[in-house]
Amino acid sequence: MTPVFKNKKIKEIIEYYKLPWALSYVTGIAHWDLETYMPSNGAGMRGEALAKISSLRQKIFLDKNFVNLIHQAERSKTLSDVEGGVVRILLRSLKYYEKLPPSFVEEFEKLTSTATVVWRNAKDTNDFKLFAPYLSKIFDMNRQMAEYLSYTKSPYDALLDQYEEGLTSKDVESFFTEIKDPLKNILSQITHSKKYSKVLPLENAKYDKEKLSEVNDKILKLFWSGFGKNFRMDISAHPFTTSFANTDTRITTWYHDRDFARSVLATVHEFGHALYDLQCDPALQMTPIQGGSSLVIHESQSRFWENFVGRSRNFIEYFLNDFQKAVGRKLSVEDVYAYFNKVSPSMLRVEADEVTYHFHIMLRFEIEKGIIEGGLKIKDLPEIWNSKMKEYLGITPKTDSDGVLQDIHWSGGSVGYFPTYSLGTFLGAQWEKEIVDYGLAIGEYGKMEKWLKDHIHKYGSTYTLQDLLTKNKMKFDPSVNLNYLRKKYAKIYGF
Amino acid sequence: MTPVFKNKKIKEIIEYYKLPWALSYVTGIAHWDLETYMPSNGAGMRGEALAKISSLRQKIFLDKNFVNLIHQAERSKTLSDVEGGVVRILLRSLKYYEKLPPSFVEEFEKLTSTATVVWRNAKDTNDFKLFAPYLSKIFDMNRQMAEYLSYTKSPYDALLDQYEEGLTSKDVESFFTEIKDPLKNILSQITHSKKYSKVLPLENAKYDKEKLSEVNDKILKLFWSGFGKNFRMDISAHPFTTSFANTDTRITTWYHDRDFARSVLATVHEFGHALYDLQCDPALQMTPIQGGSSLVIHESQSRFWENFVGRSRNFIEYFLNDFQKAVGRKLSVEDVYAYFNKVSPSMLRVEADEVTYHFHIMLRFEIEKGIIEGGLKIKDLPEIWNSKMKEYLGITPKTDSDGVLQDIHWSGGSVGYFPTYSLGTFLGAQWEKEIVDYGLAIGEYGKMEKWLKDHIHKYGSTYTLQDLLTKNKMKFDPSVNLNYLRKKYAKIYGF
Repeated sequence: MTPVFKNKKIKEIIEYYKLPWALSYVTGIAHWDLETYMPSNGAGMRGEALAKISSLRQKIFLDKNFVNLIHQAERSKTLSDVEGGVVRILLRSLKYYEKLPPSFVEEFEKLTSTATVVWRNAKDTNDFKLFAPYLSKIFDMNRQMAEYLSYTKSPYDALLDQYEEGLTSKDVESFFTEIKDPLKNILSQITHSKKYSKVLPLENAKYDKEKLSEVNDKILKLFWSGFGKNFRMDISAHPFTTSFANTDTRITTWYHDRDFARSVLATVHEFGHALYDLQCDPALQMTPIQGGSSLVIHESQSRFWENFVGRSRNFIEYFLNDFQKAVGRKLSVEDVYAYFNKVSPSMLRVEADEVTYHFHIMLRFEIEKGIIEGGLKIKDLPEIWNSKMKEYLGITPKTDSDGVLQDIHWSGGSVGYFPTYSLGTFLGAQWEKEIVDYGLAIGEYGKMEKWLKDHIHKYGSTYTLQDLLTKNKMKFDPSVNLNYLRKKYAKIYGF
Repeated sequence: MTPVFKNKKIKEIIEYYKLPWALSYVTGIAHWDLETYMPSNGAGMRGEALAKISSLRQKIFLDKNFVNLIHQAERSKTLSDVEGGVVRILLRSLKYYEKLPPSFVEEFEKLTSTATVVWRNAKDTNDFKLFAPYLSKIFDMNRQMAEYLSYTKSPYDALLDQYEEGLTSKDVESFFTEIKDPLKNILSQITHSKKYSKVLPLENAKYDKEKLSEVNDKILKLFWSGFGKNFRMDISAHPFTTSFANTDTRITTWYHDRDFARSVLATVHEFGHALYDLQCDPALQMTPIQGGSSLVIHESQSRFWENFVGRSRNFIEYFLNDFQKAVGRKLSVEDVYAYFNKVSPSMLRVEADEVTYHFHIMLRFEIEKGIIEGGLKIKDLPEIWNSKMKEYLGITPKTDSDGVLQDIHWSGGSVGYFPTYSLGTFLGAQWEKEIVDYGLAIGEYGKMEKWLKDHIHKYGSTYTLQDLLTKNKMKFDPSVNLNYLRKKYAKIYGF
C-alpha cells in the first residue's frame, strides 16, 4: 500500500520542504560532479558556491513558520508511520541547524569542498603534509561541531549520532569488544591453516580496463533493469553512491592496474546502496524521508551485496567468462572464488576481506575518538596509523597513500562514519539469514530485491534502525556474522 | 589593470550577489548534467528542483534591500566602467524578475527541463508529435513572457532583447535585407561554377569515434593549456558551452557515423564561446558581470573560431595526420580544405557552410516571429519548415529530425536567440579583420587569444555590444563579411 500523508500540518510541511529538498538535490549534483568530472581548478569557486547554499538552506529550514509547523506536527498524537518519520527526520535536522551558527555551516562546506580535491592530490602524490592542514581544520571543526550539538559523555558521541541516530562510543566499543577476539581467532586459524597462501596470483593479474568496465556494466544490467534509465555509474577516486531521487541514483566505481575484484566488488557494494534509494516508495520522493534511513542500514545493504552476492559462487560462475576476457587468461570458478574470498591482512580497507575488514574500522574508530577527545595529534597520524596497522594486522603500509590517506571520508568532513561499516556488515549477515530462511537463494536477484524492497527499502527513512528491526521481528545480533564467517572460512581454509 | 570595485554600494551589492550567483552556479551544473549524463527518467524531478530554485533565486533577487542598493548605485554619478556594468546587468535582471510572476518563472523552468529530454527523444525517434505539445506550451509561455516584459512594436522584440540588449525585429529584418541578395548572389555564383560538386566524398567517409575524440582533445590542448584544469569537454545531443566560472568552463561536442568536419567544427565553435568565459578577468568572478556579455558578441567569438580558425588552411595542415588516422585513409590538405569549406545547401544549420548558414537563420527568425506575433501554428511547423527550406535553399528535409526538430534551443525555452548567430558571424569577420590588420596571422593561436582577451574577453559583461565596439573604435558593418565571403569563395570555386 502506498503511504499517504493525511495530516494537514504534515501536508503543509511537505509542500514547504520541496524548497530545501531542491537545494539538496542540486548541491547533490554539484558534489557528484566534484568527485567525477569537475576540472581540478574548479574546487575553490565550487566551495564558495556550496558554502553559500549550505547556509541558505539552513536559513530556509529555520523559517519560523516551518519550525512551528514541525513542532505542531510533533504534538499530534495521530500520526501515521510515514508522518512520524517525517517529523523525526525534521527534528534531527532542526537540532543540527538550530545549534550550528550559519557562518560555521558555510565555512565547513567551503573547507570540505576544497579539502576533497586537496586530498585527491595528496593521495595521488603520497603527500600527507599537503593534506595535513586541511585534516587538522576538519577535525577541529568536527570537535567544535560536537560542542555545538552537545553530548553527555564523549564529544565523539555527538558525531556518531549524525550518521547513526543515538549511536555512542560506548555502543561501538562494546560491539568491538564482542567481535574482536572471535575475529582474531578466525584470522589466526586461517593464517595457520595449510591452505593459507600469502599471495594468490590473481591479485596481480593485469586487466583490460575497457573490458572490465563492460563487465561492471553487465553486472548492473543484470541487477537492475533500469540501468541507464534511473541509475548510472561513473568513475571516481573513491567509489561512492549518491541519490538525487529514485529516478536518478548514481554510483561510482574505480579501476586500477590490477586486482579486478577490487573494482567488481566496489561496483556490487555501491549497487547495494543504490538499490536502497532506487526502491524507496515513489510517494516519499521530495519529502524528508526520501531515500535510505540510517547509515548502519545503508551499509548493511551495500555490505550484504558485496559479501553475499559479489563473493558468492554463483555470481562468480555467472561472470566467469567475462572475468576471463578482462584478464585475458583462462580461469576456474575455484580460482576466482578463492581470490574473491581470500583472507589476508592488507593495507586498504576497501579491498579488505570479510574477516580483517573490521580491524581497519577499529583502527579508524580509535584514531577518530582519540583526536576528538584530545590526545592524538594530526601530525602524528601517519605514524599512529602505521603502528596500529602493525598491531592489528601485522603489516605496515609502504606509503601514506596506502595508509592514512586512503579514505575519502575525512576530506569530505565525515568523522564518526566508519563504525557504521562494521555494524552494517554485521547487520548485512542478518539480512542474508532472513532472506535464506525465507526460502530465497543468493542468485535469485529479482526476488531478493523484492524482499529487500518490502522489508527495508520502500520505507525510505520512515523508521530508525531499531524500529526497522522491531518491524522485522529482529534484534541486532553480532553472533550471526561471526558464525557465518567461522563456517564459511573453515570450509575454504580447511580448519 | 585589474578592475576594482570602490563604490560602497557596489561593494555591498557584490557581497549580496554571491547568493544568487551560487544558485546560478549549481543550477548551471544541473543543466549541464541534464544534457550530458543524467539518466533519462531523472528529467521530471530535475524539473521540479530547478523550478523551485528559479523562483527562490527570483525572491532572493527581489529582496528589498538589494533592490534599493541597485537603485542607489544607479543614481551614483561616479561609477567606474565595471561598476556601471554591474548596475546595467542587475537592472536588466531586475526588469525580468519584477515583471514575471514567480509562479510563471517556476512553471517555465519545470517545462523546459522536461521539454529538453522530450525533444531529445523526439529527435532520436523522428517524432514531431511527441514534442509538439511541449513546443506549443513553450511558445505560449514566451508570448506571455513578452507581454509581461512589455514591448513597443512587436512582442518578439521583448524576446530578442533577452539575448541581445535592445535588439528589435526591425534591426534583424534590415540586417537580413542587407545580406540576403548578396548572399544569394554568392551562392548562385558558387552553384553555377564549374568546381561546384554536389557531394564531396569526405562527407560520407566513416570515422573512428575514439580517434576523432582524440583529435578533438588535441585541438583543445593546442588552443588552451588549461584543458583539463579549468576547462573540459563532454558529449551531448547538441553541442553547447556552459561556464560556471573561469575556473570551470565546459563545452560539449558530438559524434555521428560520418562527416568528421561536423564534430571538429563544433568543437572549435564551442571553444570560441568557452574562451570568452575563460579569459574573463578573475576579479569579475562571482559578480553580475562574470563571463560573456551579449549573445552577439558571444556568437562572434564562436563563429570567428569556427570559420577563421577551424576552416583555415593552416589548422587543417596541422591536424591533417590526425584526420587521416580518424578516417583511415590518406588525405591531402586540399581535399580537407575543400571539404571544410564546401558551400552547398544542406539540412542542418550546425553543419551549414559560411554562405548558406544565414538562410537557416532567416527561416528560424521568420518562424519564431510568425508564431509569436500570431499567424503560424505549431502543428503546421514541419510543413512550414520544409517549404521555407525549399524556398531558401532548394532542398527538403527527409525527416523532421533533420528539419524542425534539429535544434535544441526551443526545447530549452529560448525563442529569439537564433538571430544572434548571424549577427555574431558577421561581427566575427570584423574581429578577424581587426586581428589581421593588427599584424597577427590566423594560426598564431596564443597571440590571437591574447588579443581577444585584451579587446573583448577580460571585460566580461562590463559593456554592451555597442559600447564594446565603440571602445574598439569599430562599427557593426555587414560588408566586411560579405567581402570576405565573396573573395574567399571566388578563389575556391573560381568565379
